[in-house]
Amino acid sequence: MSTNIKNNLPQTNQLTLGVFGFGVVGKGLYDVLKSTPALQASIHKICIKNPDKKRAIPAENFTNNAHELLLDENINVIVELIDDAEAAYTIVKTALQNGKHVVSANKKMIAANLEELLYLQKKHAVAFLYEGACCASIPIIRNLEEYYDNDLLSSVKGIVNGSTNYILTKILEEGLGFKDALLQAQQLGFAESNPALDIEGHDAANKLSILLAHAFGKIIETSAFLYSGITSIKLSDAQLAKQKGLKIKLIATAQKVEGNKLAAFVLPQFVEQHDELADVSNEFNGLITESSFADKHFFKGKGAGAYPTAAAVLSDIAALRYNYKYEYKKYYLQTDYELSNDYYLKVFVSSNDIDKINKEDFEWIEEWHNEATNNWVVGIIHAGKLLENNWWKQPGVSLILNQNPIVTNVEYRKINKKSLELAGVV
Amino acid sequence: MSTNIKNNLPQTNQLTLGVFGFGVVGKGLYDVLKSTPALQASIHKICIKNPDKKRAIPAENFTNNAHELLLDENINVIVELIDDAEAAYTIVKTALQNGKHVVSANKKMIAANLEELLYLQKKHAVAFLYEGACCASIPIIRNLEEYYDNDLLSSVKGIVNGSTNYILTKILEEGLGFKDALLQAQQLGFAESNPALDIEGHDAANKLSILLAHAFGKIIETSAFLYSGITSIKLSDAQLAKQKGLKIKLIATAQKVEGNKLAAFVLPQFVEQHDELADVSNEFNGLITESSFADKHFFKGKGAGAYPTAAAVLSDIAALRYNYKYEYKKYYLQTDYELSNDYYLKVFVSSNDIDKINKEDFEWIEEWHNEATNNWVVGIIHAGKLLENNWWKQPGVSLILNQNPIVTNVEYRKINKKSLELAGVV
Repeated sequence: MSTNIKNNLPQTNQLTLGVFGFGVVGKGLYDVLKSTPALQASIHKICIKNPDKKRAIPAENFTNNAHELLLDENINVIVELIDDAEAAYTIVKTALQNGKHVVSANKKMIAANLEELLYLQKKHAVAFLYEGACCASIPIIRNLEEYYDNDLLSSVKGIVNGSTNYILTKILEEGLGFKDALLQAQQLGFAESNPALDIEGHDAANKLSILLAHAFGKIIETSAFLYSGITSIKLSDAQLAKQKGLKIKLIATAQKVEGNKLAAFVLPQFVEQHDELADVSNEFNGLITESSFADKHFFKGKGAGAYPTAAAVLSDIAALRYNYKYEYKKYYLQTDYELSNDYYLKVFVSSNDIDKINKEDFEWIEEWHNEATNNWVVGIIHAGKLLENNWWKQPGVSLILNQNPIVTNVEYRKINKKSLELAGVV
Repeated sequence: MSTNIKNNLPQTNQLTLGVFGFGVVGKGLYDVLKSTPALQASIHKICIKNPDKKRAIPAENFTNNAHELLLDENINVIVELIDDAEAAYTIVKTALQNGKHVVSANKKMIAANLEELLYLQKKHAVAFLYEGACCASIPIIRNLEEYYDNDLLSSVKGIVNGSTNYILTKILEEGLGFKDALLQAQQLGFAESNPALDIEGHDAANKLSILLAHAFGKIIETSAFLYSGITSIKLSDAQLAKQKGLKIKLIATAQKVEGNKLAAFVLPQFVEQHDELADVSNEFNGLITESSFADKHFFKGKGAGAYPTAAAVLSDIAALRYNYKYEYKKYYLQTDYELSNDYYLKVFVSSNDIDKINKEDFEWIEEWHNEATNNWVVGIIHAGKLLENNWWKQPGVSLILNQNPIVTNVEYRKINKKSLELAGVV
């Protein structure tokens, strides 16, 4: 066995940070660092867009010249905490090329560029850590990297967007209107500056993309899998859920299905009251992993907000002191598993107008409710069809997954349109 | 910044294992390894006590000579999975001295010898991993080591013994008798071979000792803190809890209190229905960490059983391929925090005979119920007094902590016996 094991006594690196951005997370990190001098990490300079804006700390901390950070040899770690994914990409790329370690929480930028960023890390022998990009404070990336061996993990699913979970909690459990709930989420610093990223599911999809890389070693852009947000959920859906003793949550799922297929999607879903995810409220996130031997694990923690995200960023900075880096073992080792949209989902689709529901797309219709402006269908549909067709994204139509959405019973494949004819539906 | 960062491409070590023990966990590991050939780890030899016992796998796998494993240069990892803590200690010590990495799940042996085992790891530059020793499948040691920076973590508490949690669930929620519940736990492989280790709280105390090392960097033997088990919990306690909408769980707590004190105890405790720990049933374990910035995290997973423990052992083996070792940063960095039994607890004490309750030990008595054979007191008591005095461990007496047991209000310190006299109690 090789003996190049790290020395037992911690050998820590002195970290000098260049920080991009001084929004809620940047300010949170500044506060956190001030409270933890033991960390041996100090902020050398903060780069912001508008140098004239009045700030809570002295002006000499700031610059609006990115090169002052990226070219400064004293800075060995760049902490990227800005909103703009394009600008963040340029910063991170340049920093890695300049041999600096990078910590980021920009899920959109990471999901869109992971393959290249991974290559750059390797080429320049630097670390790129982003625990804060996925479920904020929950150490899920680290656990997926370190604890679960690829062939044992069968699924990862959960609530990965704190803002939409906050909004759903306020609407469905406390009776607030959508706009008021969104406004509250924004005021509390849980929402992205562009709320469409949250409520249309893009943010959750970006996180699922990152989870796929660390859980299953697959780098997959969000456009390749099925996702939507919470904008279409109607009050009548919520009432129906309540009647049935269910909750509605926006859930991201990555799951091995039959053969070597990997199903991945982000969709609103009904959850049973006794399900761990039912108790994940407000800005909390929750993740359930399933593996053959460890069985089920549940992780819960704050998934949005300045301090929880800053805490994750801080834990990455702390890890850099000990030369930690993601090893992307599952990505390098590769497996036969490939993303597939060839699987079936059990869905509830409601609409103010039954004609908006494309019944022909269903393999099987289990429930059928036609009542003036309150119509719904419960049935089995092919995931690929949902990805191709957009009728379920029309205004007035909402699609919510069943509690156990993936239908693996191959029988459904053999059912052709005749079953619908027999049911008198088409 | 140092450049001796590990190469980005995974460099894996071929692991050749010598396994001690072939009980439920050993057999579980054997099964798990057979299902994961990608792991590059093979069992070279298994050492068992009785070589004549009929086993599920061929006899050539076994030996009863420990030296065949400990002196074999082909074996680079010793996996210690035996019951006997004394024998396990000798095996682990010898293995470390012989330059072999060690994986163990023997919490009793680890808790009793951690300081020496830590010294040996360092001296011989080998790794000693034991994720399975604490909450079986939950990756808590890894997370405490890697994610939480010492000065941020304020408490770790939870259900850490799957066997007693299984028994409590069966008794309190399903109405089984104690003996039947214990028998079931044993039949399902959740209980230690000596059930006293579980039901008297020794096992949970050992785990708390291990948690203290990784959460707060303190190596503390179990005799230094307060603990008990579940044997004294009476049916009347359970009925009272039910009336109040509470559950009873055996909870291990390590918490920073005022000044530089660290409180640590394992005691039965009432929990509210909405508490995450209330939903941890049967053999599951659950842990809640609290830290200043990340706030609250909750981890839940199977805490007993052959496969969940084997999964944790397997994850340690997998980590050895990448030269992972615990760095015990918090232990080496040291802090001012010291274990203290100088704090106050709010307790419920019931007894079939009110005279068995040592009322003079209380600082304050809040509730007082005297009814033939059904007596109880709710009050504030000094933790140090509970540690010194054993009246609350008498047969017929049970002590259960309040939902929020640690009383930090210093007012209580100023209340002398006069308050009891005023209450007409003493």
